[in-house]
Amino acid sequence: MVQISIIMGSESDRAISDRAVSVLEKTDYSYEVVVISAHRNPDDLDEYIKNSDALVFITIAGLSAALPGVVASKTKKPVIGVPVSAKLGGLDALLSVTQMPPGVPVAAVGVDNGANGAHLAIRILDLLKA
Amino acid sequence: MVQISIIMGSESDRAISDRAVSVLEKTDYSYEVVVISAHRNPDDLDEYIKNSDALVFITIAGLSAALPGVVASKTKKPVIGVPVSAKLGGLDALLSVTQMPPGVPVAAVGVDNGANGAHLAIRILDLLKA
Amino acid sequence: MVQISIIMGSESDRAISDRAVSVLEKTDYSYEVVVISAHRNPDDLDEYIKNSDALVFITIAGLSAALPGVVASKTKKPVIGVPVSAKLGGLDALLSVTQMPPGVPVAAVGVDNGANGAHLAIRILDLLKA
Amino acid sequence: MVQISIIMGSESDRAISDRAVSVLEKTDYSYEVVVISAHRNPDDLDEYIKNSDALVFITIAGLSAALPGVVASKTKKPVIGVPVSAKLGGLDALLSVTQMPPGVPVAAVGVDNGANGAHLAIRILDLLKA
Amino acid sequence: MVQISIIMGSESDRAISDRAVSVLEKTDYSYEVVVISAHRNPDDLDEYIKNSDALVFITIAGLSAALPGVVASKTKKPVIGVPVSAKLGGLDALLSVTQMPPGVPVAAVGVDNGANGAHLAIRILDLLKA
Amino acid sequence: MVQISIIMGSESDRAISDRAVSVLEKTDYSYEVVVISAHRNPDDLDEYIKNSDALVFITIAGLSAALPGVVASKTKKPVIGVPVSAKLGGLDALLSVTQMPPGVPVAAVGVDNGANGAHLAIRILDLLKA
Amino acid sequence: MVQISIIMGSESDRAISDRAVSVLEKTDYSYEVVVISAHRNPDDLDEYIKNSDALVFITIAGLSAALPGVVASKTKKPVIGVPVSAKLGGLDALLSVTQMPPGVPVAAVGVDNGANGAHLAIRILDLLKA
Amino acid sequence: MVQISIIMGSESDRAISDRAVSVLEKTDYSYEVVVISAHRNPDDLDEYIKNSDALVFITIAGLSAALPGVVASKTKKPVIGVPVSAKLGGLDALLSVTQMPPGVPVAAVGVDNGANGAHLAIRILDLLKA
Repeated sequence: MVQISIIMGSESDRAISDRAVSVLEKTDYSYEVVVISAHRNPDDLDEYIKNSDALVFITIAGLSAALPGVVASKTKKPVIGVPVSAKLGGLDALLSVTQMPPGVPVAAVGVDNGANGAHLAIRILDLLKA
Repeated sequence: MVQISIIMGSESDRAISDRAVSVLEKTDYSYEVVVISAHRNPDDLDEYIKNSDALVFITIAGLSAALPGVVASKTKKPVIGVPVSAKLGGLDALLSVTQMPPGVPVAAVGVDNGANGAHLAIRILDLLKA
Repeated sequence: MVQISIIMGSESDRAISDRAVSVLEKTDYSYEVVVISAHRNPDDLDEYIKNSDALVFITIAGLSAALPGVVASKTKKPVIGVPVSAKLGGLDALLSVTQMPPGVPVAAVGVDNGANGAHLAIRILDLLKA
Repeated sequence: MVQISIIMGSESDRAISDRAVSVLEKTDYSYEVVVISAHRNPDDLDEYIKNSDALVFITIAGLSAALPGVVASKTKKPVIGVPVSAKLGGLDALLSVTQMPPGVPVAAVGVDNGANGAHLAIRILDLLKA
Repeated sequence: MVQISIIMGSESDRAISDRAVSVLEKTDYSYEVVVISAHRNPDDLDEYIKNSDALVFITIAGLSAALPGVVASKTKKPVIGVPVSAKLGGLDALLSVTQMPPGVPVAAVGVDNGANGAHLAIRILDLLKA
Repeated sequence: MVQISIIMGSESDRAISDRAVSVLEKTDYSYEVVVISAHRNPDDLDEYIKNSDALVFITIAGLSAALPGVVASKTKKPVIGVPVSAKLGGLDALLSVTQMPPGVPVAAVGVDNGANGAHLAIRILDLLKA
Repeated sequence: MVQISIIMGSESDRAISDRAVSVLEKTDYSYEVVVISAHRNPDDLDEYIKNSDALVFITIAGLSAALPGVVASKTKKPVIGVPVSAKLGGLDALLSVTQMPPGVPVAAVGVDNGANGAHLAIRILDLLKA
Repeated sequence: MVQISIIMGSESDRAISDRAVSVLEKTDYSYEVVVISAHRNPDDLDEYIKNSDALVFITIAGLSAALPGVVASKTKKPVIGVPVSAKLGGLDALLSVTQMPPGVPVAAVGVDNGANGAHLAIRILDLLKA
């Protein structure tokens, strides 16, 4: 069991997930990093989420970044979305991550800001320590 | 069995799907219209697609329009995406529909352009008549 | 003491905070709604945050929406930001809310999406029930 | 006779058409690649389309990408448009390709996404095998 | 024979062409107004341009505004383009009209600015009086 | 006396004016190239325009590209504007050049498209040969 | 003599200048409001600025808002620019007002924010009281 | 005591503040340069502003550039804001700096335009010499 699951949509998002990992390494929270595309491996993603007992998900994706929203639709845990700049300066991913329909919230942080994905997860998990 | 499945993400997209229906009504292609949100009813959507024998899907969604991409990830049939303008003039939906990762194509038409969703489906199905 | 503090930057953001309230009313979480501008009442905001024992902050602001970031810089609790469309379709607020520097995370939801601000708060607080 | 015609508006779009070719090479569909500008060689384009018996057109163009729309106005076959990023991150081409008037549909894929142009063509042609 | 040909892509652009007409009515230049879509009536457009002896063309179109570019590709006369705001505030049309490839120039004026289309035509034709 | 005056706002726009020159060199039209900033040398610009007997002006500027509009306000001759990409992909210059008030038209071409500035000037001057 | 000169580019900007006036009326600073277009009345503007002994200029303009920059090029006094939303949500005016070349500064405030134009002028003039 | 305080939000903004310094060095105005983040060191910033007797503040920040607005909310002196391009071409910072609520004005200059930040400060302080 890990407390934080970091899912990136593509191996090419590794540099961004590394920023999240760098922040988490300085804490005692447990985490794991997996690469599963919402678009190319939907069934794998579905199964992963169902079997995961992570408390918080950090999802990292570029372009039409469906990963955060799909994860948010499959779990009731908080889902953080990190948009990655691949095209158009990352505006495509930023809008895809933020503009979710009511009822399926994603907690978006800034473009390529893997560090803040981790910082936000820490703030959320710190509530459990209080 | 229908040849064309029109899926909209929300009842609020009805005006756009009506434009597609108006075009299809002038043809002899069969179609059905359903409302299933990729974000709020992912399992329903999954089941619907698996059970559908539609040849072409017309998917209609606004905001972070994940519906077209999710459908494209669950079927090998052509999937047409119609972005709907709900916020930001529809730029959010347009980018969400078009900027798919390689291997999971969505055939995007213009913002709110339900008619062209239908016209494109007709061009595709007309190939079967030749 | 309340569990959720909803802070809007201006009385003109009331319609958006009402959407958050509508969602929270269906839960047993306690909340309060206050109007404090980060730009016009910085000292009031400072004092409010220091005296608040809220577990989660939902901050709602338009234009150059500094409120979410300022709150995030004054508390270690999770801060949710709801950008409001006043000009430019809300793009100004969306970018102001999301593009925070590393170390000061804001959990952004979509433009005018007060409902998702509440849904996200609920997901976070539900962790404490598990 | 080829089944798929790939038309690019300029030799400078070659890198994008190569991505389409890479995908098609793994299939048994026949294709040809030509360079004809809708703006600089309109008559050549006109003649090419009239003489072509391709079942699907993949059109690739940047800037004010008129090529996809012009082809779609000259044939009744499905026309796929691949916007190329030359200026403004490709936003100009993306909007030119997608925002077609009702009745003249172009099936747009993402910016520089030649691969998805091919994948979409394959999905369409696969219908003929069923 | 007319000196100025005003071509709009759709009857819905009439309000913008009226602004051009209002300006031209105060001059002694002759003009005619026609409605021909580059996308829906390409052959009609082709024939019209070939038969026209207009000295300047004012072309008015929204969305993926191919009309100005297509006219510019069929004549060697100066072609003025007026982008019309139908979606996205007219940004789609503005980019479609301006971002032409080298060799096929369109003289773009501002969004919905039919008046300046006429004023520019007048400046050009006034050169013949000097 | 020259027929075409090419004015750039800054020496840094030289690469773009060179593209215009390359096109004009293949014609027999006479031209001159000057560097005068509308913002930094307004009186020089004023005097230059008043003393110029050029028939067409090609104005080249980036950022808040006031040069084309200022020239258009000082002469009744056709003024072509070439927006240069310095920041924001050139969107700032493109909007500054195109969005002129009614009565003061600028003939805009695409971002960095000095060649089309020249091609457009040639089309205009060719009218005098007919 | 007035201390503050408010110049708007068009009578249609009156609603925005009224917001500046409302703020100034609560102070003892003297001001005057004039309508002079930088593009349509360049010589009037030139003369007005040369004859003005205002200490601060508040300039208000939409579209390709050259007025602030032109005033800043003609005076050495501080020039405040208020972009007005006429098209594209005011993005055109915002970029025209802000993106000035080094050496000719304009102090931009937000879109349609005539009030802040006045508040900024007051802050500047208050320095003279200290 | 210094007359001009230059505050940048991060050491990474040094190149932009250097441009301001280069301009100020040619004048006899005194200045100091400090690095204080509005988001990461809010209390330091608060204390700095309260203890400063600078007449004008030049604030330099990227991303969600809250620094200018926060300074403007803590002082009644003129505050100049220089948006820095870190992501999205600097559009995020530009909108954050300009779109302030009425009553808390920031004098924005262009993206990365540290020079104009200084030039504007000089124009303001020159009023005291008159």
